[in-house]
Amino acid sequence: MSEHEQWSELGQQLPVDSVRAAAAAGSGHPTSSMSAADLMAVLLAKYLRYDFDRPAEPLNDHLIFSKGHASPLLYSLYKAAGAISDEELLTFRKLGSRLGGHPTPEIPWVDVATGSLGQGLPCAVGVALAGKRLDRVPYRVWVLCGDGEMAEGSIWEAFDHASHEALDNLIAIIDVNRLGQRGETMLGWNTGAYARRAEAFGWRALEIDGHDIAQIDNAYEQALAADGQPVAIIARTIKGKGVRAVENRNGFHGKPLEDPDAAIEELGGLRSLIVPPTAPAGDAEVHRFATDHAPPASWDVGEKVATRRAFGDALTALAATDGRIVALDGEVGNSTYAGLFADAHPERYFEIYIAEQQLVSTAVGFQVRGWIPFAATFAAFFSRAYDFIRMAAVSRADIRLVGSHCGVSIGEDGPSQMALEDIAALRSVQSSTVLYPSCANQTAKLVQAMVGQPGIVYLRTTRGATPALYTADEEFEIGGSRLLRRTDADEVTIVAAGITLHEALAAADELAHEGVTARVIDLYSVKPIDAHTLTEAAEATGAIVTVEDHHPEGGIGDAVLEVFADSSARPRIVTLAVREMATSGTPAELLAQAGIDRVHIADTLRALVPQRLTSA
Amino acid sequence: MSEHEQWSELGQQLPVDSVRAAAAAGSGHPTSSMSAADLMAVLLAKYLRYDFDRPAEPLNDHLIFSKGHASPLLYSLYKAAGAISDEELLTFRKLGSRLGGHPTPEIPWVDVATGSLGQGLPCAVGVALAGKRLDRVPYRVWVLCGDGEMAEGSIWEAFDHASHEALDNLIAIIDVNRLGQRGETMLGWNTGAYARRAEAFGWRALEIDGHDIAQIDNAYEQALAADGQPVAIIARTIKGKGVRAVENRNGFHGKPLEDPDAAIEELGGLRSLIVPPTAPAGDAEVHRFATDHAPPASWDVGEKVATRRAFGDALTALAATDGRIVALDGEVGNSTYAGLFADAHPERYFEIYIAEQQLVSTAVGFQVRGWIPFAATFAAFFSRAYDFIRMAAVSRADIRLVGSHCGVSIGEDGPSQMALEDIAALRSVQSSTVLYPSCANQTAKLVQAMVGQPGIVYLRTTRGATPALYTADEEFEIGGSRLLRRTDADEVTIVAAGITLHEALAAADELAHEGVTARVIDLYSVKPIDAHTLTEAAEATGAIVTVEDHHPEGGIGDAVLEVFADSSARPRIVTLAVREMATSGTPAELLAQAGIDRVHIADTLRALVPQRLTSA
Repeated sequence: MSEHEQWSELGQQLPVDSVRAAAAAGSGHPTSSMSAADLMAVLLAKYLRYDFDRPAEPLNDHLIFSKGHASPLLYSLYKAAGAISDEELLTFRKLGSRLGGHPTPEIPWVDVATGSLGQGLPCAVGVALAGKRLDRVPYRVWVLCGDGEMAEGSIWEAFDHASHEALDNLIAIIDVNRLGQRGETMLGWNTGAYARRAEAFGWRALEIDGHDIAQIDNAYEQALAADGQPVAIIARTIKGKGVRAVENRNGFHGKPLEDPDAAIEELGGLRSLIVPPTAPAGDAEVHRFATDHAPPASWDVGEKVATRRAFGDALTALAATDGRIVALDGEVGNSTYAGLFADAHPERYFEIYIAEQQLVSTAVGFQVRGWIPFAATFAAFFSRAYDFIRMAAVSRADIRLVGSHCGVSIGEDGPSQMALEDIAALRSVQSSTVLYPSCANQTAKLVQAMVGQPGIVYLRTTRGATPALYTADEEFEIGGSRLLRRTDADEVTIVAAGITLHEALAAADELAHEGVTARVIDLYSVKPIDAHTLTEAAEATGAIVTVEDHHPEGGIGDAVLEVFADSSARPRIVTLAVREMATSGTPAELLAQAGIDRVHIADTLRALVPQRLTSA
Repeated sequence: MSEHEQWSELGQQLPVDSVRAAAAAGSGHPTSSMSAADLMAVLLAKYLRYDFDRPAEPLNDHLIFSKGHASPLLYSLYKAAGAISDEELLTFRKLGSRLGGHPTPEIPWVDVATGSLGQGLPCAVGVALAGKRLDRVPYRVWVLCGDGEMAEGSIWEAFDHASHEALDNLIAIIDVNRLGQRGETMLGWNTGAYARRAEAFGWRALEIDGHDIAQIDNAYEQALAADGQPVAIIARTIKGKGVRAVENRNGFHGKPLEDPDAAIEELGGLRSLIVPPTAPAGDAEVHRFATDHAPPASWDVGEKVATRRAFGDALTALAATDGRIVALDGEVGNSTYAGLFADAHPERYFEIYIAEQQLVSTAVGFQVRGWIPFAATFAAFFSRAYDFIRMAAVSRADIRLVGSHCGVSIGEDGPSQMALEDIAALRSVQSSTVLYPSCANQTAKLVQAMVGQPGIVYLRTTRGATPALYTADEEFEIGGSRLLRRTDADEVTIVAAGITLHEALAAADELAHEGVTARVIDLYSVKPIDAHTLTEAAEATGAIVTVEDHHPEGGIGDAVLEVFADSSARPRIVTLAVREMATSGTPAELLAQAGIDRVHIADTLRALVPQRLTSA
């Protein structure tokens, strides 16, 4: 067989196996797999540099299916590469199989989970950027995109950043099969429109027939010429190619074929080609950043420092001693103080501009290559990337997110800039950690702890300056808490974190003058939560007041309630939170308006211990 | 004064007033206001058709500041139009003032809140689309965009849809002042790059000097030629224009000027031009859709129907009788069953393709004009638009979101398609309502109730078919619940909704055979919640088991815990939820794997009432 004949055969085997996998599963997306089969056949047979036995090999290319629903094709490719058996292929979508409905990194050759469209390409930008500026090795990142997902704005954030960063190691293959789930896409087979958009965004665009083996080969060959531009191969393809019952027909998205046997026959029957890709040649010299001894950031107790500023100082100091740490920010580095890192470690800082989806995706891409990314923006604007954070958890990604300007305490800028749902949103993500410091020294210790914490790790920082409460040598573990006021006679407990902890301390001190002692817990680790200390406080005091600069649903109040849900101690819990729509005003005015300032906390305490106060 | 001289004067008055407003507030964005002052001066004086005394006038143009941080300019424009006094201008950012840090519809001339960048233009697409296809009146929608926000993917979703829908009533004015918050934007003053991108996305692009009154005038004049294309006016401008201390210099974003008096003098001093815009001429004949008598959708008790299907049928039937109802979907209408609406009411259906940010924004734009939008997609993919939902609440928007395919019970497609954080995320949004039906007839009643419910109203629907539990004439109020099993001897209460309600009923029936009666509450209204029925159950049974196809944080369990936080009845509450990373498998397998199926519920009940079972 000539090369081209072999590739054509492989281009038939992949749809056959896709049809078979979907038939065995009773669900899945064979027609979306068939359109891209020829494209993937040539890639596997000639261009992909990959060692399936050593997926962690730094010189390996990366292959990301941004159209994750074409998983039957991806798994058929693995079979053709000799990486999985035919038996395993047919476990597709079954409980316990790693070959899930959409790819996840349960499979060792999958970098990132896909299936929420428009996410594979942005993550690939992160992997490619790591190749250029962090690892500094010549791997290529190949991405298979669907045409339907080109409607996602995140795709254009990725296009924008890839050209801005001159990622000529990134090749997007756009499978223009014209048909979405429900009908035709906006642009149909107008491949010229895709090409014009790609070019306007600074990419090199190649329009081809995605079923012409020679054109595919030629396009990949051209794509290898690294000239400073990422490359988009815009391939006109046919959905359901090769099977008349479904070919180029609407209504067959996401369904196994009705007659798989006939389809397999029409596609020329079973084949069992094994075409392992070429392994990358040579030894990789992965770049490592020089490190130095550097003292951690620290402050005197009582010094007034915003925790956002402490984050910037702490991460900058930490990165001097740990070359794996990198930082990214969404063009607000002078607000989040990621800018301090940019000044100190410009080679490890990445300006992502106002593109929060790309911000999170780049972080996900970086951790694919083992870097330790901290991504910062206003906490409110991580809501822009919530689907990406959710999917990062499915990707088993280890990323660190730092959100500044949380809550009404930011003041005059008003509700658009205030994160009031972030604790709820981030707590609910699987594998997440939610930290909320109140003191600069504590922030520094938590930033350090974040380095080793797996999963989605979120740090919520505060805009305004607050006095340092703890000494610089005090340790803070994820999952811990601190008792800041405690006597054996405490009548009530206040649980707070961040800005409201300072209000809580003031309220407790005021009540102490009235002869009522309140225990104060600094709940800096909202998830995981220190159930032991909370339970002890509940048993000792019987009543808890939680105070948070956040909406009442899903936040600190709920986190504390969860501890006592099925506990033998079930204290009264009064939850103070931001219940009305926030406005502009000074921080103090807004804390008061929301009923979460020292005055309201003190009033709540008085109402909870009336007998004691009446007798006083 | 000639026209051009007057516009130039106005173009100086607006920055002067912007500087004064920010100085009075002690914060704000004067330099970002100054760059667009000439552009807005000509718009107000000659092109905007607007009656400030009648903001609800259907023929009024719309002016949306997508760069919401230029609020000093917007408010200065209101003053120049004679709509607000100078005294009010100087209340900028103060507590109680409607002139917040970023614009919100507390101000009657503001359509949508902005301040999270990249949202004004997508919402404007919705307003413009309403003008073309719903209202059918010739208003124009003018949008002031910042250059920094062009990095947001949502901007390109808006460009994509505006050209696809041929919105030649939409004019985006892009204020290319080169400087972002922290430094230069990716494209700087490369207005040609913006023009090429706009053109590639199907817009007409006009490049101008944004401080040349004649060029601005000419560009607006050209923009009025409605030729089927939206228009982007790409204006090269100077940030901080007219004040040497800040003009075209980095480091002055989001700060009042250091010496406002000197700046005002440099800008030529105070002016007090009043230039009310021309009110729209003629009478509007706003289009209304014909309606008919039509029976509501209904099913027999026991009939197996997915609630997603019931939603589609119910909304389609309801819209036949109510012409204000419109539907939108993100290219999954055959899954959400919004497609039924599309078939029945094609003029009122909007295909938004795979662009969830634009999906929500279009709904927000539609409700600006009084339409009643229902936007549907997979529940998981609303996470893509979470920032838009959050901001819709700040906009006081009345929108209805319908998310299908929630939870692990979708089965084989796997975690990327499963909404497991949506209840947490949506509950935490201010003004939100969260509904989760378990029965087709109930779904129909809730869809009806959603029409009249203000704020962000979310309906969570289920993929799989479930038997109808209620008759078609049973009423369901928002904030209510239903007791499906109840005796005076109930020993425990199960709270569930949607798919898990069916599991709960099966578990209760199983326990009944063992002599233990469990009360079963259908918590179809998760927010607001029926505290009365829950409290009654807690008092009667002492223990509650919540079961949800959702992560444990922020969901139904937390909503129930909140009811009892400070209640005199504080029952034991066991929360069953999805705690591990979900996988592929059959719905039944995945419910079992997550521990939320009938078997696990029954086991939990048995563990809660051991004494009773031991004696049995």
